[in-house]
Amino acid sequence: MNKMQIGIVGSTACSNQVAEIAERTGFLIARSGSILICGGRTGVMEAASRGAKAAGGITVGVLPGSSKEEANFYTDITIVTEMGHARNVIIARSSDCIIVIAGGYGTLSEIALALKMGKPVITLASQWAIEGTIKASSPEDAVECALRLLAIGKKNNI
Amino acid sequence: MNKMQIGIVGSTACSNQVAEIAERTGFLIARSGSILICGGRTGVMEAASRGAKAAGGITVGVLPGSSKEEANFYTDITIVTEMGHARNVIIARSSDCIIVIAGGYGTLSEIALALKMGKPVITLASQWAIEGTIKASSPEDAVECALRLLAIGKKNNI
Amino acid sequence: MNKMQIGIVGSTACSNQVAEIAERTGFLIARSGSILICGGRTGVMEAASRGAKAAGGITVGVLPGSSKEEANFYTDITIVTEMGHARNVIIARSSDCIIVIAGGYGTLSEIALALKMGKPVITLASQWAIEGTIKASSPEDAVECALRLLAIGKKNNI
Amino acid sequence: MNKMQIGIVGSTACSNQVAEIAERTGFLIARSGSILICGGRTGVMEAASRGAKAAGGITVGVLPGSSKEEANFYTDITIVTEMGHARNVIIARSSDCIIVIAGGYGTLSEIALALKMGKPVITLASQWAIEGTIKASSPEDAVECALRLLAIGKKNNI
Repeated sequence: MNKMQIGIVGSTACSNQVAEIAERTGFLIARSGSILICGGRTGVMEAASRGAKAAGGITVGVLPGSSKEEANFYTDITIVTEMGHARNVIIARSSDCIIVIAGGYGTLSEIALALKMGKPVITLASQWAIEGTIKASSPEDAVECALRLLAIGKKNNI
Repeated sequence: MNKMQIGIVGSTACSNQVAEIAERTGFLIARSGSILICGGRTGVMEAASRGAKAAGGITVGVLPGSSKEEANFYTDITIVTEMGHARNVIIARSSDCIIVIAGGYGTLSEIALALKMGKPVITLASQWAIEGTIKASSPEDAVECALRLLAIGKKNNI
Repeated sequence: MNKMQIGIVGSTACSNQVAEIAERTGFLIARSGSILICGGRTGVMEAASRGAKAAGGITVGVLPGSSKEEANFYTDITIVTEMGHARNVIIARSSDCIIVIAGGYGTLSEIALALKMGKPVITLASQWAIEGTIKASSPEDAVECALRLLAIGKKNNI
Repeated sequence: MNKMQIGIVGSTACSNQVAEIAERTGFLIARSGSILICGGRTGVMEAASRGAKAAGGITVGVLPGSSKEEANFYTDITIVTEMGHARNVIIARSSDCIIVIAGGYGTLSEIALALKMGKPVITLASQWAIEGTIKASSPEDAVECALRLLAIGKKNNI
C-alpha cells in the first residue's frame, strides 16, 4: 500500500493537442504503478484519467462541488469536497508531486500551493514559468522526472 | 467505474469487540464490490480498512492532518485534507451511505452532516440514537441494509 | 482587542417564537460587549444578528456559499467560505462558546463539533439534548451562563 | 452595513520597509471606512492590522490554525479556520479586492485564487507580476485604485 500519488493539474477546457499530452501523461503515471490524483472534471483532468485507465491504473477525482455526478467517466474514486477552490489545496496536499499541463489561474493556485508545501512541481506546455518549477519537454520527460525526484525524496526520507 | 462508496465512521480508539465489528463490516463492504471510505486513522478506521483489504477491496483514507504518514497501513488511497474536523464533511459527502460504529462527538458530527445531506445513516453498536438513523444488529445486517437502500436510491435516480 | 466571540447556531427557517428568543439572545451577547458569530443567513441567524445590532454590537456571518450577497442585512463582517457545511467547523472553532437555538441536523453537527473541540455548548428551546450540553431556560440564563463559563475558562487559561 | 472588505496578503516575515508599506496601506483602508481582511498573523498581516487600528478601523484575521491565540495583537475579529492553506481561499472570497504586498508562494496562491474569482488584484512592492494584476506605486495609489475599482464594480452591480 502507500503507492506514489501523482497529481495532474490543468483546465476544464483545453485544445486537442493539450488533451493528447494529458492523456499520454496519465497513461505513463498509471503504467509506473502510481495513482493519478486530479480534479475529476473535464478537459485536462478527463484526458489524463482516460489515459490512466487505458494503462489499467487507479484514478482519483477530487471534485469542487457537492455531487458525485460531476466526475468524469474515467474516475474510479470520487472525493466530493463541496469546497470550491479549496479542493485545490487537497489535490496539492494529497499528491507527492504535481505535473502541470497548460492551465489558467486555478492551475496557478495549485502550482503556488504545491511549491509552498515543498512538493516538486513539473510543468508541461504551460504558460506558467514560476521560479521553483521544473520544465519538462514531453510526457515521458515529465513522468521520468517525477519518479526520479520521488525516489530521491524517499531515500532521503523526505 | 463509479462504484458504490460506503463510509465507515467511528473513533480513533475502540475496544477489541468494536474493532472486530468494524473489521467484519469493512470486509463485507469490500466483498460487495464497494469502495470503503473512512478517516484513514487508527481504531475503527484501521480495523475497517484491514477488513476491506482482507477481502481484496479498495480503501480510501480522508485524513485530517497534513501528512500522508498519518494514514493507517491498510489505506490504498490517501486524501490529505489539512482541514481538521472539516474532513468529516468530505467523508459524508463522498460516501453514498454511512455506517456508524460506536463513536464519540466526532462521529456524531458525521451522522448529523450525512443526515443533513439526505444520505442513509446506519448505526452499529453506537450510543447515538439520532432520529433518522437506522439501527443494524450486525455487520451483515448493516451492509445488506446499505446495499438495499443504495439500490433503491439508484433505481429512483436519487 | 481579542473580545469574547459567542456563536449562535440554529436553522435558516424558524417560528416567530424561536426568532424572538434568538433576537433577545443576540441583543444580550452584544450588550455584554461580546462579538456575535453566526452563519450569516436567515431564520435564527438573522434574528440573532438583528438583536445584536439593536444593542450596537458587532455581527459576523460565516457564509456557506460563494457570494457576500447571501448575508442577511444585519451582518457587519461577511466571511465567504465557499465551503458548504464545512463552514460549520469554522463557526465552532471561531466561537469561544456556542448557544444553540432550536435547530435541525446542521445545528446538531455544530453541537457535536463544538463538544469535540471542548467548547461550552448551551441549548435554548432545542430538541437536541446531547450529553455534555447545558440547558438554559431563557436568553438571559443562556448568556449569563456563557459569560460565567468563559470567565472561568479565562482564569484557568483554557 | 455591508461595508467594503479589502484584503491585504503578504508573508509572515518581512523587511522593515515592507512592514511600513503594509502599515500605511492598512491605515488608508481603515480611513476609507473599509474593513481590513487578512491572515491574522505576523509580518505583513500584523503591520497592516496595526495601521488599520491606528486609523480606528476594524480588522479581521482569518487564521490557518486551530487557536485564537495565533492572531496578532491588532486583530478585532478572529476567524479560526483550522484549515491550513485553504484559509487562503476564504481570504480571497471574503475580500472585495486584494492588495498584495511583497509575498512568497502562499501569497501567489492568493493572487491566483482572487484572479480566478474575478476580483481586482493590486500589487505593491511584489515580485509577482502575474497577468491580470495591477501594479501600484505606493500605498496611496493602491488604496485609491482599489476604491475606484470597487465603486465601478458597485455601479455595474458586479
